[in-house]
Amino acid sequence: MTTDWLDEVTWNSDGLVTAVAQEAATGDVLMVAWMNREALRLTLEEGYAVYWSRSRQRLWRKGEESGHRQKIVEIRLDCDGDTVLLKVEQIGGIACHTGRHHCFFRRLDRERWNTVEPVLKNPETIYSR
Amino acid sequence: MTTDWLDEVTWNSDGLVTAVAQEAATGDVLMVAWMNREALRLTLEEGYAVYWSRSRQRLWRKGEESGHRQKIVEIRLDCDGDTVLLKVEQIGGIACHTGRHHCFFRRLDRERWNTVEPVLKNPETIYSR
Repeated sequence: MTTDWLDEVTWNSDGLVTAVAQEAATGDVLMVAWMNREALRLTLEEGYAVYWSRSRQRLWRKGEESGHRQKIVEIRLDCDGDTVLLKVEQIGGIACHTGRHHCFFRRLDRERWNTVEPVLKNPETIYSR
Repeated sequence: MTTDWLDEVTWNSDGLVTAVAQEAATGDVLMVAWMNREALRLTLEEGYAVYWSRSRQRLWRKGEESGHRQKIVEIRLDCDGDTVLLKVEQIGGIACHTGRHHCFFRRLDRERWNTVEPVLKNPETIYSR
């Protein structure tokens, strides 16, 4: 495999790019995370989203504990090269660690953030495996 | 106006959050940019997307030169509070400074980034006003 395509990405001073995961079938924006070069390479190679966890400072195969992996449908790069858009199939229909379909479950209504998406699965159940 | 809702946002060490703009009608992810507290406050107040330009170090009313403003339909916050999702109406149908509908016009095909979205308007025309 060539890695020329990885050189065209504009990595920030920490060697990262922003990664947006979007559900291919619905268009729902599921989550936003970070990738380093290795994460993006592995995402293509394995066909499932691999992120860089800044809090844990390690590669994070999305769904490695929960099983809620993200199968890659398409990978896009933006105009200035510092953001990647992943179109994915969300295994299990749950992207968020709170047990919701996606992470953007708070909507601004009259200067308040209201939770407007249901918990589909108890997080304690998700991570008890 | 209260600003309590702004305190619930997890601003990074530079005082910024990631902002994803998504076209409300189509679900297309248009662009990803940054906002500081003032930008997010003004976005709500004015009803159009206001970002923080890191390169120019100033508030950036999206479309201030091109006219391609983004009318706010909905504002969402993610689980850890460090990313905002704007559902917008893209005025003029062009979000990208290259004259394309959105910024994610490069698709990874066989380890190459291929441009797969047409230029709808010559950028020189867009910014000549």
